[in-house]
Amino acid sequence: MATGTPLVLDRQMFCFTLFYVIHTHLFHCQQFLIPFKDPSGCGVNEFFDISSLSCAKCGANQRKSSSGLSCICQTGYKTKHFSSNKVPFTCEQCPPDKPAVTKDGFGCIRCPGRLDDNGNCQCPSGNILVERDINGTFFDEASCEACIGDSPAFTAPNSNGDRCERCQATFSNTFCTCQSPNVQAGGLCFPPGSFSTNVNPSVSYAQLAFSIQSAWFVENLYSSAAACLVFSNLTACQALGNMCVMNMHSFTGLSTDACGLFNTISRSKAALSSVQDISYWRANLPWLYYGDEPGLAGQVLQNKPVPLSFSFRGTKKNTDIQLLAAVYNVRGDFLRWDPIGGNNLQLCPEQAFKQAAAFSFGTTYQETCELSVAELLTTHPEPLFYDVFMDLGGGDNRKLLPLPTLVQNQQYNGQFINQGSMQNWYLSRRIFLVDTLSGREKTLSSLPKVIRVATSIKIRFQLVPRTQEGQIYPPLVSVSYTDVLIKEANSQTLPVTFSVEYEMDQSEARTKTDTALGVLGGLAALYSILKTVSWKRRIASPLIDMETMLKFLLFYAGDLANVFFAVTVGTGLYWLIFYKAQQFVSVLLPLPAQEEQFETYIGCAFALKAVQFLNKLILQVTVDVFLIDWERPRSKASRTVPATKETKQEPSPVSIWRTYFVANEWNELQTVRKISPTFQIMAVLFFLEVLGFSNLALRDPWSTLERSPAAYTPPYSLILRYGLAATLWICIGLLQVIFFTVFYEHFVEDKIRQFVDLCSVSNISVLLFSHRCFGYYIHGRSVHGHADTNMEEMNNNLKRERESLCGQRGLLSNTDIQTFQVSFTNRLRLQYDRIQDSLSRAHPEMDYIVKDKLTLERVIGMEFLEPIDKSIFYNDERHSFSDVLFYGNEATLLIFDTLFFCVVDLGSQNFVLAAVLTYLQQAMFRFIRNTLGRRNLVNKTLVDQRFLI
Amino acid sequence: MATGTPLVLDRQMFCFTLFYVIHTHLFHCQQFLIPFKDPSGCGVNEFFDISSLSCAKCGANQRKSSSGLSCICQTGYKTKHFSSNKVPFTCEQCPPDKPAVTKDGFGCIRCPGRLDDNGNCQCPSGNILVERDINGTFFDEASCEACIGDSPAFTAPNSNGDRCERCQATFSNTFCTCQSPNVQAGGLCFPPGSFSTNVNPSVSYAQLAFSIQSAWFVENLYSSAAACLVFSNLTACQALGNMCVMNMHSFTGLSTDACGLFNTISRSKAALSSVQDISYWRANLPWLYYGDEPGLAGQVLQNKPVPLSFSFRGTKKNTDIQLLAAVYNVRGDFLRWDPIGGNNLQLCPEQAFKQAAAFSFGTTYQETCELSVAELLTTHPEPLFYDVFMDLGGGDNRKLLPLPTLVQNQQYNGQFINQGSMQNWYLSRRIFLVDTLSGREKTLSSLPKVIRVATSIKIRFQLVPRTQEGQIYPPLVSVSYTDVLIKEANSQTLPVTFSVEYEMDQSEARTKTDTALGVLGGLAALYSILKTVSWKRRIASPLIDMETMLKFLLFYAGDLANVFFAVTVGTGLYWLIFYKAQQFVSVLLPLPAQEEQFETYIGCAFALKAVQFLNKLILQVTVDVFLIDWERPRSKASRTVPATKETKQEPSPVSIWRTYFVANEWNELQTVRKISPTFQIMAVLFFLEVLGFSNLALRDPWSTLERSPAAYTPPYSLILRYGLAATLWICIGLLQVIFFTVFYEHFVEDKIRQFVDLCSVSNISVLLFSHRCFGYYIHGRSVHGHADTNMEEMNNNLKRERESLCGQRGLLSNTDIQTFQVSFTNRLRLQYDRIQDSLSRAHPEMDYIVKDKLTLERVIGMEFLEPIDKSIFYNDERHSFSDVLFYGNEATLLIFDTLFFCVVDLGSQNFVLAAVLTYLQQAMFRFIRNTLGRRNLVNKTLVDQRFLI
Repeated sequence: MATGTPLVLDRQMFCFTLFYVIHTHLFHCQQFLIPFKDPSGCGVNEFFDISSLSCAKCGANQRKSSSGLSCICQTGYKTKHFSSNKVPFTCEQCPPDKPAVTKDGFGCIRCPGRLDDNGNCQCPSGNILVERDINGTFFDEASCEACIGDSPAFTAPNSNGDRCERCQATFSNTFCTCQSPNVQAGGLCFPPGSFSTNVNPSVSYAQLAFSIQSAWFVENLYSSAAACLVFSNLTACQALGNMCVMNMHSFTGLSTDACGLFNTISRSKAALSSVQDISYWRANLPWLYYGDEPGLAGQVLQNKPVPLSFSFRGTKKNTDIQLLAAVYNVRGDFLRWDPIGGNNLQLCPEQAFKQAAAFSFGTTYQETCELSVAELLTTHPEPLFYDVFMDLGGGDNRKLLPLPTLVQNQQYNGQFINQGSMQNWYLSRRIFLVDTLSGREKTLSSLPKVIRVATSIKIRFQLVPRTQEGQIYPPLVSVSYTDVLIKEANSQTLPVTFSVEYEMDQSEARTKTDTALGVLGGLAALYSILKTVSWKRRIASPLIDMETMLKFLLFYAGDLANVFFAVTVGTGLYWLIFYKAQQFVSVLLPLPAQEEQFETYIGCAFALKAVQFLNKLILQVTVDVFLIDWERPRSKASRTVPATKETKQEPSPVSIWRTYFVANEWNELQTVRKISPTFQIMAVLFFLEVLGFSNLALRDPWSTLERSPAAYTPPYSLILRYGLAATLWICIGLLQVIFFTVFYEHFVEDKIRQFVDLCSVSNISVLLFSHRCFGYYIHGRSVHGHADTNMEEMNNNLKRERESLCGQRGLLSNTDIQTFQVSFTNRLRLQYDRIQDSLSRAHPEMDYIVKDKLTLERVIGMEFLEPIDKSIFYNDERHSFSDVLFYGNEATLLIFDTLFFCVVDLGSQNFVLAAVLTYLQQAMFRFIRNTLGRRNLVNKTLVDQRFLI
Repeated sequence: MATGTPLVLDRQMFCFTLFYVIHTHLFHCQQFLIPFKDPSGCGVNEFFDISSLSCAKCGANQRKSSSGLSCICQTGYKTKHFSSNKVPFTCEQCPPDKPAVTKDGFGCIRCPGRLDDNGNCQCPSGNILVERDINGTFFDEASCEACIGDSPAFTAPNSNGDRCERCQATFSNTFCTCQSPNVQAGGLCFPPGSFSTNVNPSVSYAQLAFSIQSAWFVENLYSSAAACLVFSNLTACQALGNMCVMNMHSFTGLSTDACGLFNTISRSKAALSSVQDISYWRANLPWLYYGDEPGLAGQVLQNKPVPLSFSFRGTKKNTDIQLLAAVYNVRGDFLRWDPIGGNNLQLCPEQAFKQAAAFSFGTTYQETCELSVAELLTTHPEPLFYDVFMDLGGGDNRKLLPLPTLVQNQQYNGQFINQGSMQNWYLSRRIFLVDTLSGREKTLSSLPKVIRVATSIKIRFQLVPRTQEGQIYPPLVSVSYTDVLIKEANSQTLPVTFSVEYEMDQSEARTKTDTALGVLGGLAALYSILKTVSWKRRIASPLIDMETMLKFLLFYAGDLANVFFAVTVGTGLYWLIFYKAQQFVSVLLPLPAQEEQFETYIGCAFALKAVQFLNKLILQVTVDVFLIDWERPRSKASRTVPATKETKQEPSPVSIWRTYFVANEWNELQTVRKISPTFQIMAVLFFLEVLGFSNLALRDPWSTLERSPAAYTPPYSLILRYGLAATLWICIGLLQVIFFTVFYEHFVEDKIRQFVDLCSVSNISVLLFSHRCFGYYIHGRSVHGHADTNMEEMNNNLKRERESLCGQRGLLSNTDIQTFQVSFTNRLRLQYDRIQDSLSRAHPEMDYIVKDKLTLERVIGMEFLEPIDKSIFYNDERHSFSDVLFYGNEATLLIFDTLFFCVVDLGSQNFVLAAVLTYLQQAMFRFIRNTLGRRNLVNKTLVDQRFLI
């Protein structure tokens, strides 16, 4: 069998010898390589040996068979079998008196007429070739017989041309040929005048702006239409309908194209009762169109709920969408009822259980893939047609709901009516996935010039408004076909999408949101006015000037940001809870297009909050700080003034180190917060990414955190993502605040209290001007009189205080209250300004009243009394001086961080990136706050920068 | 057409009326629901109307056809056509004199014998029924004719029983029946004695521990074997081979089962020359087995490289694995050459370009899915058989390399030889994917009892060791079949895997790693001994006791951890660089099983590092701190002692506030690091998760960061993940260290320098005992003599110093050096201990020498001089006192964090979780360090806790 050269043979012999000599080392001398051959690569006198996968020679007088896998006798040679197993058969030339080979190839025969190319006898058309008698005996000479075509035989030659067989029924009225004036078409014979033969077998490709004469239409359009109309042939009617579907259900004004013919026939059957009580469905015809009344689509789609109830959980859980399709082939044969769910409408190859996710109610499904055109050509030689129904179940009394279909490509007198508003939609039925047939121009076996693919199939479910029982309107199947011009089929691909969408009327929700925004926005404006008034008092300025307006706007920005934030988080949380936790379906998520307004609100909230935050930052780093040292020098110390070399008795200087210490600690308090911002980020990230909370934001009704990586993952809902992230952030923030204020600050350390304590121990008071005439006072006068002393005395002092052997620390005797809000008199403020100007330090003398704030004053953050002569000290046990620190503005910071995190995430759909950027933002503002705050402290207290470390 | 009750008809009429009255409101009264019907649900006298999708009545004397989609005449009735289009045809009873219906159904005829169930004439077997003459005319009476079986007609009835046709060649030696002693089997007639009819048509299901008599084997085993042996029928030989493949290539000792017969025939053909120079491939037979010589598998798989060169990049880039399969059907027909790559070996449905990733060299591929048994039954009615080759290309001279196959299920006398060591493997060829045929027990149309599925197909590529040109050994196809007992086909699923694996001999790499570990481990031991010696000196203890041993082990733990860390990071980086960056393939990643040792090393590194870290932590929080205040009281101050009411003249106390300040700042320095640990985590997370660096750890040769979410994602390599994470961590850490030491500490703030500066300004020195007789000294004596003064003087002092109007700060005059390492004398240490004991503070007197450290001393961290009489102060400009802080141990902390991060990631394969846990770990240790450090400071310096804030 080997076809090698002598050299190869030698090598083979060598190996062969080796094989017997050193058996196990055989494989050293060969690589097990074989040359590639395929049947078409073998010569005319060779066949492809399927055992050795190589070409082998045929016997004498033989040639390759058409498959290439065996040999047959050459023309004029008959086959002869032997019992030998070496050669299966030989070929023998036919004798000159019987020059033709019989059709079975085993005999030689004389012919009544000519021989054909294969060396067989040839008969005229309409005749059959007879080589054997009925019982199988060969005739010496073959004969040609005409088939009896008239009654009662009604025969015609079979396709092989060797037997007379009953002819087709439509021919058989009188004779087995379709004689004029009858019209023969598509293998049928139509009576004269039954149907105009003027049909237009073109298929229009609107996207490519041309139409072609389709071989399929040429062959079948007339015959199908005629057979449908004349013989009421069910299959022909379906085939005609299919051609209309392949033409995109389009009416061109011509009544001779597929849809025109369909409508003509449809109108002619209007008198008959309609099918299944549905007036659009005519007897014998497929149902292709809903009516063309204006507004019909709306009424079909939004009038009557489907008698089904969807429920996400509980005993009545029902999320199965059962769709069923009646499947027809292009010839109009009904193939089967096909439950939709596998891959019949889903062209993308995907695992079955992933595809099944498309039919779980509430799970937004979208699967896109690129399909190779070459593959489509082989896998879809002919289109299949689907009439889609929804299976409503019901046991024996099972009901089906026909789903209306919207063909985006459908034209009505040249207009793409279905791409406009619903008012003009023209609903239809029946879709196909891939049509490689209608684009074949010359013959049905040629390569198509164009193929048409349903590149987007979307099933849209719409919830009945205000339903409590998960009722839906009839779902709409929306199909968009793409015309693909075949150029390089092997390299052409096209994207295909299958999606399932759920929507409900969102106008009610939107109205509610807008109402909430309006009401709260109004309240915010009032509150901002109140704040502005309060601010005006605190800066002791009665004029309403530009600054006042600006201030009002700044206040309003902050309050409005809070309103936007509250409304958006509330909305997000609403969807999160009501969508994910509902039993019977009563709400569905807004579609991405409906989320735009929400995004705008978030953007507003963030922008306004940023304004407020920056404003607060600027105010904080310009606050006036005033340290008052109560320590008095103890005695005179001798001191030498170098310039005059003269010795003076001077008071021993009061050490500045206590002031340094207090200033240093104040500096460190600047960016202390009620929470740990980094822990906050890490915790949010942990919940979202590690514990899988992010899965709650998927567009499906399940609230499981863990998803199998192999399972279908629906797209995210922006609203849910925002609601989830913001809620998590706020919740963790609040938990942290509670932890730090309730536990940590009581049992570990409270930096604010420590500072107040330090003031007292160090005999230094702190005066803070947050406004011109308003501020805070931390009373730090030591109860021991002196603090500037050695460790022994300090420890003694501390010990005495622990044992309550000395007075209380309060500003007034017998009180404990050290922290005050202060309304300053203008006089005092001027005094302070003077001190600042002269760059010297002194103890301001001031008259003052100490009082409690009224509850109302506390709530609205405004003082009713005006400090005319005496400054007013309001007791302030809540350390509200921290308002000039990050510490007292935790709410603003927390909301700003939340919004920052959410905005980054909405932009990038990436929680990790949001976390990283939020961290950087926090670090940056902390750095700015610290740096500017320290510089301010240096300026205001004259403490050298090197002591603020 | 409606089949409703009168009530429904009324409703219909009502609608009908409405339709004409209020046209557009039609749809209000109907829901467009239709009842579900299918062809099988229609009655005997009904057909399924494919237009209305409902059941419709047949005409008179008609019944449902077998498809249910049309009506046919009842038995005994002939079909009669009319030209009317109302009723397509009617049925007419045949007259009693012609009681039978002709086979075409259109005529009536008399029969020569009995009628069959369909009302047609019935002829005895071997006879044909003749109803028409050759030209088509009906006979009045049909006749039965016997076919002439002997020469030269050689005819037998055709399958329809209405014509005599040439009979099968093997029958035709004498007569068209297979007469005894000939043996008829499988449509063939075998000469007597040609082959024993004793065959065993059972298929053994080893996993289910039973075997069944397979209908396919019963029907075809004997005939295939006989036809193969007797007639050398190529197709029959393939069919026999396929049966052996369906039996898992197993030898049972019986020579009458499929593989036994195959081998018998194979041996009988040994004398013929082998096919394609391959001695295991016999003429006419498929090649199913490699030889059974021991060790043959190793030589086939690891002896000669494939003449191909794979390259990942560059002009010669070649990563295409081109596999080709000769495909046969179960009957042994050669179907085609199939390029493997689509879904022919991959049962899981997946997008084509994802599946194509399997054949990109270097990309580890694994795709698993659950397949439904019911679906397999419909999609794979018959198995296909694949002979897999590798296409080596070469244009006209195209060569193929047959791939050896390892069938895990193959048995050799009851042993699963292929599940053991390679020494015993018995390589074979030809695989199938799904066999639902051999498990059919009674008939070929029955439901199979068992199906067999290739649930795991793995193609393993092995790199030639030390190749620089990407050469591989012949790839091995490893197949594992699963026997599935069919119980509930609809609910049964089974997991199917297709994988492509790449491996190379890792022993060399492992040897290198182990060598590096050994050498570095030895050096680490030496270094640890040195450290122990140094430590002994510093604690001034000459004895070698248990503590010394323990200390040595602790040192060794740290050093060994570094060695493990260096080796593992080095290895990871090696793979990362060499695997991802190579052009010609020269290395392949270790398989998961080969990574275990590496994981152990990482575990060791982490555990040892943790020991070192904890040890350092303990040492740091027990360090002895001693604050020396140089300030002297200025004068006497009068003071009233309350107890005695007596006024005494006492020295004005030196204020303790400077000490408080210094202690407070020292406390704040405890956990300051050279990097920002949180930024570190965020940056690593940013690179890995946001920028997509984690994609570098995928098991493919590509180094792109961005991957399409739709593309195939190979599994991760643990080594690459570790190498990547550790390298990133270390790099970012180093960058941070450089940024902070070079930029930040020079231009923003340097906390260590600030502290030293503060000491000087506050006139306080700090003495730190890190060992009993070794420590650090920060010289803080104020150059101004006094520091305990008011702001004016302080500012003057600072100004003078800025203008260099006073002395330098150094311990020795005219030097600047303020920081020292100190070897203390034992005497000084005892003094210190005494001070600590008595809880009082004093200024220790000490003699000392100041000197520079030798370079060698610096390098090995040991002092050569012993402080006998005088303490030795070593100049230390590098602030090495920070060794007792986190600051000075950045390397340890960084490596510990790195290992912590990597270990968590290796365990969880989740970088986010690793980041979160690393953050928590850092926060926890920082909290512990701070708390314990503060407590230590309180104990050692007697500064009240409230000043350490």
